[in-house]
Amino acid sequence: MTTAIRSEFDQGIALTPAQGGPGRYDGELDPGWQIGGGINGGLLLAVAGHALSLRHGAAGHPDPVSISGYYLSAARSGPVEVHTDVVREGRSLSTGAASMYQDGEERLRVLATYGELSAEGSDIRTSARPPQLPPPEKCIGMEHAPKQLIEQAALLQRLDLRLDPATVGWAVGQPSGEGRIQGWFKLADGREPDPLMLLLAADALPPVTFDLGLPGWAPTIELTVHLRARPRPGWLLVSHATRNLADGYFEEDAEIWDDSGRLVAQSRQLARAPRAR
Amino acid sequence: MTTAIRSEFDQGIALTPAQGGPGRYDGELDPGWQIGGGINGGLLLAVAGHALSLRHGAAGHPDPVSISGYYLSAARSGPVEVHTDVVREGRSLSTGAASMYQDGEERLRVLATYGELSAEGSDIRTSARPPQLPPPEKCIGMEHAPKQLIEQAALLQRLDLRLDPATVGWAVGQPSGEGRIQGWFKLADGREPDPLMLLLAADALPPVTFDLGLPGWAPTIELTVHLRARPRPGWLLVSHATRNLADGYFEEDAEIWDDSGRLVAQSRQLARAPRAR
Repeated sequence: MTTAIRSEFDQGIALTPAQGGPGRYDGELDPGWQIGGGINGGLLLAVAGHALSLRHGAAGHPDPVSISGYYLSAARSGPVEVHTDVVREGRSLSTGAASMYQDGEERLRVLATYGELSAEGSDIRTSARPPQLPPPEKCIGMEHAPKQLIEQAALLQRLDLRLDPATVGWAVGQPSGEGRIQGWFKLADGREPDPLMLLLAADALPPVTFDLGLPGWAPTIELTVHLRARPRPGWLLVSHATRNLADGYFEEDAEIWDDSGRLVAQSRQLARAPRAR
Repeated sequence: MTTAIRSEFDQGIALTPAQGGPGRYDGELDPGWQIGGGINGGLLLAVAGHALSLRHGAAGHPDPVSISGYYLSAARSGPVEVHTDVVREGRSLSTGAASMYQDGEERLRVLATYGELSAEGSDIRTSARPPQLPPPEKCIGMEHAPKQLIEQAALLQRLDLRLDPATVGWAVGQPSGEGRIQGWFKLADGREPDPLMLLLAADALPPVTFDLGLPGWAPTIELTVHLRARPRPGWLLVSHATRNLADGYFEEDAEIWDDSGRLVAQSRQLARAPRAR
């Protein structure tokens, strides 16, 4: 344990070695990461991802390249235990599994492949283009969010989130119906982005179902994040969209762009849609 | 074992209970599913998915809803063993894990959530639209494929694949550079689609990197398929695309539409890009 002042995020994902075998870690889920009564799924993935980073770092593979979380039961604030297993160690990539428990009940099961991400980049043929939106100072900060939203989402106070005015009609009862929410993303305390922080960013915006006129929280069933580059310091640009809501489920695709305009992460989740009122 | 004539696909994913504990199954990977020297990743996912279907079927959850495969080493034709574990059984969904081995070496690790898919559908707000392409009889069958391709991909002879002429320029040395390949999909022996067959369809088209002018095979690192409805009998429409090739990796998104025009599955994989020549 360090005594230096740590960012809220670094405190949130902090782990110490636990009893019972190698690759076991103890953590503490802070109520400040709550959303809709449970702890945010992106933060949980970052905690499990941190444990696997500790496990695979020794083999020179500290960064998640692809990480899939299957959410089993809602996590509450309080102590958490993470058990990791090395599935395979390769030359450039290693694969591991992790399980997160609270009081013996499994909250989250993770499979992931780790490697070493670069901030540079070569042979980039990305055809995706970053979303077009006004600069952060012309976007909508969370100080303008509906009070009921803030009360149910302590998490939002830890973010400096500036949403595209074109995608926040839902906050004043006028959802666009397009199923898209996008905006600028920073941690409120200024902690700069890194690969583990991208796992939080992939699941920290309000659910895109808000923009379909479906208020209420959308429990994640599965979330996979592909990390493609180490993000530069500065703002992240996060875009969430859904194209297939049916039978009570929807997919939510996120793209995360860094301050240099690079597509640093792509994620997709399957979630339960809130019930139509 | 049944003595009735089974389709190639049903034979390909057939499993029998194995020694060593509940939830263990023996299978046989047929060389007819080979592609580029290994067994096709979609077929492998269907074999593991079949094992989990047997495991979760008893709880009323026979169909994969979300399934993630992490590919550890290339699978060869021959015997295979699949070990399954029930992670959690819930009311409407169950989660399980599976490992596929050959000669004691792990080929594939899977995490998945199972439920019961419906062919009906309610509250469908899908904004995605199926790709526009000519009818099957005006598309390009595999009898026109380059000989080197067919020789390296026995799999293609088990498919009735009719590719959109607009996305097959790569076959005559004129890739579009757009990173998209789409077409009509059936099994050659007429076996109708079901949820497990969609796992094959999600990874059976030629890699989209062909359309970027990168011939050669693209090993899958991770593949997640979300199954959203039970497909109707008839043609499937499969569209593959990539928007982010960089640093030797690319994502490949697939959409699978059934004969009724419903988006029945969405998948994304992270793969290693073939080296540029």
